[in-house]
Amino acid sequence: MINSYFSETTKVMKSSLIRELVAATKNVPGLISFAGGFPSPATFPKDVLSKLYAEVVADEGKDVLQYGASEGDAQLKGELLKWEGYTNLTPDNLMTTVGATNAIYYLSRAVLNEGDVILCEAPTFLGSLVVFDALQADVQSIPMDNEGIDLNLLTEKVKQLRQAGKKIKVLYTIPDFQNPAGISMSLKRRHELLNYCLRENILVMEDNPYSRLRFSGEELPTLFRIANDEMQHPFLVTEIVSFSKILGPGMRVAFAKGNPELINKMVSWQQKVNITPDCVTQRVAAKYFAGGHMNPHIHLICEFYKPYLDKMLDCLNSEMPGFVQWTKPQGGIFLWLWLPEDLNADKLFFSAKDHLVTFIPGSKFYPEGQEKYNCMRLNFTYSSIEQIETGIKRLAQLLKSIYV
Amino acid sequence: MINSYFSETTKVMKSSLIRELVAATKNVPGLISFAGGFPSPATFPKDVLSKLYAEVVADEGKDVLQYGASEGDAQLKGELLKWEGYTNLTPDNLMTTVGATNAIYYLSRAVLNEGDVILCEAPTFLGSLVVFDALQADVQSIPMDNEGIDLNLLTEKVKQLRQAGKKIKVLYTIPDFQNPAGISMSLKRRHELLNYCLRENILVMEDNPYSRLRFSGEELPTLFRIANDEMQHPFLVTEIVSFSKILGPGMRVAFAKGNPELINKMVSWQQKVNITPDCVTQRVAAKYFAGGHMNPHIHLICEFYKPYLDKMLDCLNSEMPGFVQWTKPQGGIFLWLWLPEDLNADKLFFSAKDHLVTFIPGSKFYPEGQEKYNCMRLNFTYSSIEQIETGIKRLAQLLKSIYV
Repeated sequence: MINSYFSETTKVMKSSLIRELVAATKNVPGLISFAGGFPSPATFPKDVLSKLYAEVVADEGKDVLQYGASEGDAQLKGELLKWEGYTNLTPDNLMTTVGATNAIYYLSRAVLNEGDVILCEAPTFLGSLVVFDALQADVQSIPMDNEGIDLNLLTEKVKQLRQAGKKIKVLYTIPDFQNPAGISMSLKRRHELLNYCLRENILVMEDNPYSRLRFSGEELPTLFRIANDEMQHPFLVTEIVSFSKILGPGMRVAFAKGNPELINKMVSWQQKVNITPDCVTQRVAAKYFAGGHMNPHIHLICEFYKPYLDKMLDCLNSEMPGFVQWTKPQGGIFLWLWLPEDLNADKLFFSAKDHLVTFIPGSKFYPEGQEKYNCMRLNFTYSSIEQIETGIKRLAQLLKSIYV
Repeated sequence: MINSYFSETTKVMKSSLIRELVAATKNVPGLISFAGGFPSPATFPKDVLSKLYAEVVADEGKDVLQYGASEGDAQLKGELLKWEGYTNLTPDNLMTTVGATNAIYYLSRAVLNEGDVILCEAPTFLGSLVVFDALQADVQSIPMDNEGIDLNLLTEKVKQLRQAGKKIKVLYTIPDFQNPAGISMSLKRRHELLNYCLRENILVMEDNPYSRLRFSGEELPTLFRIANDEMQHPFLVTEIVSFSKILGPGMRVAFAKGNPELINKMVSWQQKVNITPDCVTQRVAAKYFAGGHMNPHIHLICEFYKPYLDKMLDCLNSEMPGFVQWTKPQGGIFLWLWLPEDLNADKLFFSAKDHLVTFIPGSKFYPEGQEKYNCMRLNFTYSSIEQIETGIKRLAQLLKSIYV
């Protein structure tokens, strides 16, 4: 009966299918899970944070327990500007949000009408797909090669969509250690993509939860940095940076930066949706920067995660049959497996569960109707080294047993 | 140029006019402000909270710094259920949110299509008006008498709207110490309103930031409690409870309870908008309850605020000319002044600023096109006793000088 009261959007909206999958494998004893996107709790800097929370509430409680600014805590914004070192940006270019998904929501809400096209990589982050979908945008995904989004396919797709009279507003991309594919966009591709989007008047939404989690290889400039420093088109890109994999997702700290007029509209949505993110936690994050903790901590996390990634890559290399391929990231928290075309990872999910290993079937990371089924996502930051070894063995044995 | 990318909703959306007014009076030396809706920082329990934040992060950091459930922290939900003592409710009836505005947003998003009618009191909370407006709902306000929303006018309005083919989904009300009017709905009116809404199939959104802030007089049951305990229609009402005026708005802690199917849809929106509220702060709030701090603290706040309300009522009584009327609340944080019909508080705002006293003109608390101008809102929880005395004198002198 209550159903008759729901808005049309709410009636058709999907919830994250991952949650249901994760729930389906929740109470299986001995199951090794590569499914989640959770950082290791061992990386949370809880001792420093505990001290900072105590100090901030005791010393600045009158301020941080009061209503804060919708654009975010001024101290935190100041620290973020210093940290990233953009000399041409001011606090008006930046807002804090309740995690990165919140920024993705505000930006999408600020620009997308129902039916407007948002372009993304195929596969892409499921959390963003459900946001775009809830806003009834037309989500069009473009395959990647090992350098990132395929420019030829993108060009072709844009042409088709425009011929069909579609309004294309934004391209959503995760250039570094992409979720779910683990691919990092090459420097050349970054330049090509930005030049293309500039020419075609397509705004770029750069989702950056992982660029600081590089364990080896050379750092690449973000799209925002290239647009700002090299192209003199700073506002072609809106970059969203999350601290969920650095401080801990429970704190819900992220920020967005870009065109001040766009940021202003996103702030206006924040005023309506949350008023402001948690002011206590924002100030704690500010003090964490001010105390010089951030960069050494990021260095520690990268040192911490490297053996897990190395182990997973080693095990895949030694255990997997020749018909399986995978990405070889130098950081982040995921990698991606390609199976032969005629293997369906959605079906494999259930037999894998019986073999006490689990993952997310790749199909979940595509817009509806654009799915690939012969792929899966593996997380390497939440299991132990031993679990990675055993889990990859189980998965390899299963694949060998069903596909000859 | 960026404007051409904004969504239609974003182009037409208004920001909170209060912020602009408050900004206009920001750097006036000696100005006494009754404008804001801020609780007194002296009421924030910062010492207990400082200790709890430190303990929670140190002892439970692996849990609370990790991703939490979209429906809210299970410990906090458990404490909230115990605190309110509804024996028939389960955790599925309840979700936590990033402050009450966030719950208002989710509920509105879950039920309102563009053009659907939401009924509210006239005047009402501006923060809710901008949410309804941003969702392009048709907001229809109904005047109050001193017992709350006028049932005859409501009945008449509903009839008119239905004759015009309108879909009426929700009635939004703040029954206790209403913002901005300071009116509390009488027990009789509560019953009448609930029976009316049940008969007419109108969902009730009960916004409850203030019911626990009663300084004198007898406590009234919330609409949710009447619907649940007396009417056996528990889910006629969705109640939203805020801790912004109890713990401190910077913590952004609130919860909503009601029909589990509706709560489930609101959780689904939370998953897309914020994933989860701050998990550290939620657990701290849980421990605050578990430690038995909440009820004694509320008692202290009420004791603390009573002299401020008494002082403002005394000063109004002794200073104001006979043509001014005001509400006499027994709690909350606001009261409301009625001026003669031909006085416009929007204009008065500027001369008041020159007289070094400020308030929010009443017109800001009505949907567009439904404004009254001969009224103003006064807050009594943020100024000192001396400031209340001086400020009310200034306001009274101004009114006497311009209206004879």
